[in-house]
Amino acid sequence: MNLGVGRKLGIVLCVGLAAAVQVQAQSRESVDLDMVSRIRQEAFHRSQVMATFGHLTEQIGPRLTNSPNMAKANAWTREQMTAWGLSNVHDEAFDDFGRGWLYRSASVDLLGPRQLSLHAVPKAWTPGTQGAVEGEAIAVVIKTKADLDKYKGKLKGKVVLLSEFREYKAGTEADSKRYDDAGLTALLDYAVPKDANPADRKKRASEYVQRQELSQALNKFLVEEGAIAALSISGWDNGIIRVGGGGSRRAGEPVGVPELAVAAEHYNPLLRSLERGEKVNLRINVDAQFTSETNDPGYNTIAEIPGSGNEVVIIGAHMDSWHAGTGAADNAAGVAVMMEAMRILKTLGVKPRRTIRIALWSGEEQGLIGSGAYVAKHLAEYPESTDPEQKKLPKGFQERGGPLQKKRDYDKVSAYFNLDNGSGKIRGIYAQENLAAMPIFEAWLKPFNDVGATIVTPRNTSSTDHISFDRIGVPGFQFVQDGLDYGTNVHHSDLDTFDHASAEDLKQASAIIAAFAYHAATREQKLPRKPLLEN
Amino acid sequence: MNLGVGRKLGIVLCVGLAAAVQVQAQSRESVDLDMVSRIRQEAFHRSQVMATFGHLTEQIGPRLTNSPNMAKANAWTREQMTAWGLSNVHDEAFDDFGRGWLYRSASVDLLGPRQLSLHAVPKAWTPGTQGAVEGEAIAVVIKTKADLDKYKGKLKGKVVLLSEFREYKAGTEADSKRYDDAGLTALLDYAVPKDANPADRKKRASEYVQRQELSQALNKFLVEEGAIAALSISGWDNGIIRVGGGGSRRAGEPVGVPELAVAAEHYNPLLRSLERGEKVNLRINVDAQFTSETNDPGYNTIAEIPGSGNEVVIIGAHMDSWHAGTGAADNAAGVAVMMEAMRILKTLGVKPRRTIRIALWSGEEQGLIGSGAYVAKHLAEYPESTDPEQKKLPKGFQERGGPLQKKRDYDKVSAYFNLDNGSGKIRGIYAQENLAAMPIFEAWLKPFNDVGATIVTPRNTSSTDHISFDRIGVPGFQFVQDGLDYGTNVHHSDLDTFDHASAEDLKQASAIIAAFAYHAATREQKLPRKPLLEN
Repeated sequence: MNLGVGRKLGIVLCVGLAAAVQVQAQSRESVDLDMVSRIRQEAFHRSQVMATFGHLTEQIGPRLTNSPNMAKANAWTREQMTAWGLSNVHDEAFDDFGRGWLYRSASVDLLGPRQLSLHAVPKAWTPGTQGAVEGEAIAVVIKTKADLDKYKGKLKGKVVLLSEFREYKAGTEADSKRYDDAGLTALLDYAVPKDANPADRKKRASEYVQRQELSQALNKFLVEEGAIAALSISGWDNGIIRVGGGGSRRAGEPVGVPELAVAAEHYNPLLRSLERGEKVNLRINVDAQFTSETNDPGYNTIAEIPGSGNEVVIIGAHMDSWHAGTGAADNAAGVAVMMEAMRILKTLGVKPRRTIRIALWSGEEQGLIGSGAYVAKHLAEYPESTDPEQKKLPKGFQERGGPLQKKRDYDKVSAYFNLDNGSGKIRGIYAQENLAAMPIFEAWLKPFNDVGATIVTPRNTSSTDHISFDRIGVPGFQFVQDGLDYGTNVHHSDLDTFDHASAEDLKQASAIIAAFAYHAATREQKLPRKPLLEN
Repeated sequence: MNLGVGRKLGIVLCVGLAAAVQVQAQSRESVDLDMVSRIRQEAFHRSQVMATFGHLTEQIGPRLTNSPNMAKANAWTREQMTAWGLSNVHDEAFDDFGRGWLYRSASVDLLGPRQLSLHAVPKAWTPGTQGAVEGEAIAVVIKTKADLDKYKGKLKGKVVLLSEFREYKAGTEADSKRYDDAGLTALLDYAVPKDANPADRKKRASEYVQRQELSQALNKFLVEEGAIAALSISGWDNGIIRVGGGGSRRAGEPVGVPELAVAAEHYNPLLRSLERGEKVNLRINVDAQFTSETNDPGYNTIAEIPGSGNEVVIIGAHMDSWHAGTGAADNAAGVAVMMEAMRILKTLGVKPRRTIRIALWSGEEQGLIGSGAYVAKHLAEYPESTDPEQKKLPKGFQERGGPLQKKRDYDKVSAYFNLDNGSGKIRGIYAQENLAAMPIFEAWLKPFNDVGATIVTPRNTSSTDHISFDRIGVPGFQFVQDGLDYGTNVHHSDLDTFDHASAEDLKQASAIIAAFAYHAATREQKLPRKPLLEN
């Protein structure tokens, strides 16, 4: 199958004259097949990607930003990349992330009217119980701050059930999916975006602020009222615990009471029991703690294969994770592949024109914070708004305070390549509307068509660290990956573990990343940039 | 869709003259559409099936045979059926089932090299830990009694990992499935059975005995060697705990050490950790206990709507369950539907020719024990072999000791109808090779074609209590049901809970069961019997 080549002709016909020039460019695009062959041999037959993946997931474990495990991951990846002979291996801090947190164990036991150990995982950044506590459950419905008043004086010594009942949804699609030809071909169609409605952004910002305020008020209320713990329903059915943060990672903010996400099959029955008028008694024991009292910096880990010039190609993936599983598909897989690509290139002794830099980000799960800070420091940033109303909003919602301010290295970075859509193999790349990059990527992908990577789509994809680059006009790309069970079983869940990934997928990805990094670092020109939309 | 009627003609053409007579019989088969209409009204618009289902699953909970919960279920169903005005409500004992057992809570915490609460459920009939115990994990591979010697002196104070590594299997089919037209049509084809190889039966029997002997030797060995607990891998992936019995329910047999099934995603990493040479430390706390010291009888619960004659129609489902979930699809669903059918018929004031009896079996999960004992007592049994080698085998493997011995009621029972293939709605019925029954069932199903029940298949189905009747020549039937997630998520697992069932499915089934029981109890003749294969 070679959808890449067939489709490329279609695109050429559509975009006319400019594209014709590109076809020339593309046909001239130099692909070092000898190097690709060497990369494939190292990646497929002498792979270390599973050892790296295994160390991150099972010897270190989950890597919540600023947790002790994340520090271990920073240290181990530095050590490993130093051992491989990479240069300039170091951590780079970004300020003011927040507090560290970890949990060691957690149990929720239903003591009456019947007895059962409930499957539950604490929310990140919520306190532990300091030993087992017992209390009666009470169900609340709190959608606005005004709702809090209803429960004044009623929560003392209680376990508060925060979520409403959720009906079970039968799984009528396969858990695990790979792209078929039709699915890949569909990705080649681009939908011209609708005009944005400025009111929508305002509404979303206002809703976000309200949610934040409610969350803080609720945390404060639960503590003041003397609730002993809170339970909410897991984000997914089938006994899977899908859970992120609660409480607050920010020093000085109320962290609330110990709060856990409970498997839906164990949570709904608690509500039904209360509805029947039964007394529901629970014993909860959470060994969790904040590991710092201040808003500590987070750390990205950086390493390089130096180039002969002063330009740079960056490859990266976020190393931080949520805490319920071991952050395997999200995103030890991406980290292991990126590290493996560096190992391969170093082992092959490449001497690139541009420095090949690897960045293992932190704080991704809390809003691309590590990569955002890196880009702001080295490449460019929009000044913050001075409007006090705007400053209340999280950065993503704020209006810009002025035109882009470029930093020293803005013109030096050719491209950033990211991997963070699970552990599935690479099927192509999102060109992020950079049409001039497409024929280049098609040429680079061609020697991997036989292992299933065929597609260059003009589409944008979002939600991970390439966006930190893309939004300031430096070419940032994320690859198209087979979904496997990322969206059904593992994303942010207790099933995000080593066993759900496959060696073949990660080997394939590491070969492709190594080849992309190599070609980006050796081609004569930097990658073309698309026009920057300043507003 | 009316696959039932279309297909019936096909069968007629195939079986020739005898079938032609059946067509006459079928066309004469009386269906009381007025009564069916009344049944549907009561079943669809005044249903109590979910209240019954909810009480069994969430107010009582799992119902392991001879556990206190099973006794509660016997008592509550007697009470409920008495309140509905059913007659002759009583429990009927069957001897010598074994000991009762329950568990209240269980936790397995990984203490090192990293910390994590593992998702685990104890195996039934294994002891508790009497408080938290801590020990180092050791992996064993024990496939024969000779393998035990390898571990002599090595297990003291240890947590024994009994299962080998199991590779994750990606779910490439939907979890939850309903029959489509093609699937139903495929059920109409019968495959002529291959001749049985007597050696196969002997081999299976011998393997069974070896497994039993190994299991008892292992239980004894673990205790003698001073192991503190044992862990094995759950039967399914995706964090689901699928678990049955361990230890032994039989008084006097070795029960081994506390043993739990651990989620695959939490178990495999323990083995990998040991392979790396790490010390794996675990804390285990299981609050479980045997509730009797003797091989107590089990109890089936029976109730009736009396008929005017002395013949009987029996409907039934097993009320016992495994313990990890709440025995919802397996088989509170069947019990609730059967009870609801009785309630409907009683509410409608039916005056049947034959007594309609409901039997809620126990001991089904351990080999159709409750229904088997009932049939042996009232209907017929094969004498046990007097050969001492045969007597060592479980009943299912023993050669018969002589021809069938019929009991008093053998000729009085028209038919037995069973429901035990999950909580999915009824799509038809397995005629169990009883061709003469097929046109009758087709007539009875016709007024339910509009709610998806269309198929009468000549096929046999096995593995549940209708087999206890079928094997002694009394017509026993199980319905074709939509599978939903029975075979993927809930069967014998911790997900076998209330939320995975739907009210619409159980209402539909209760209407059909009520109509089948009514028609079987009012038609002039008993249902035809197929020839009994005496060997």
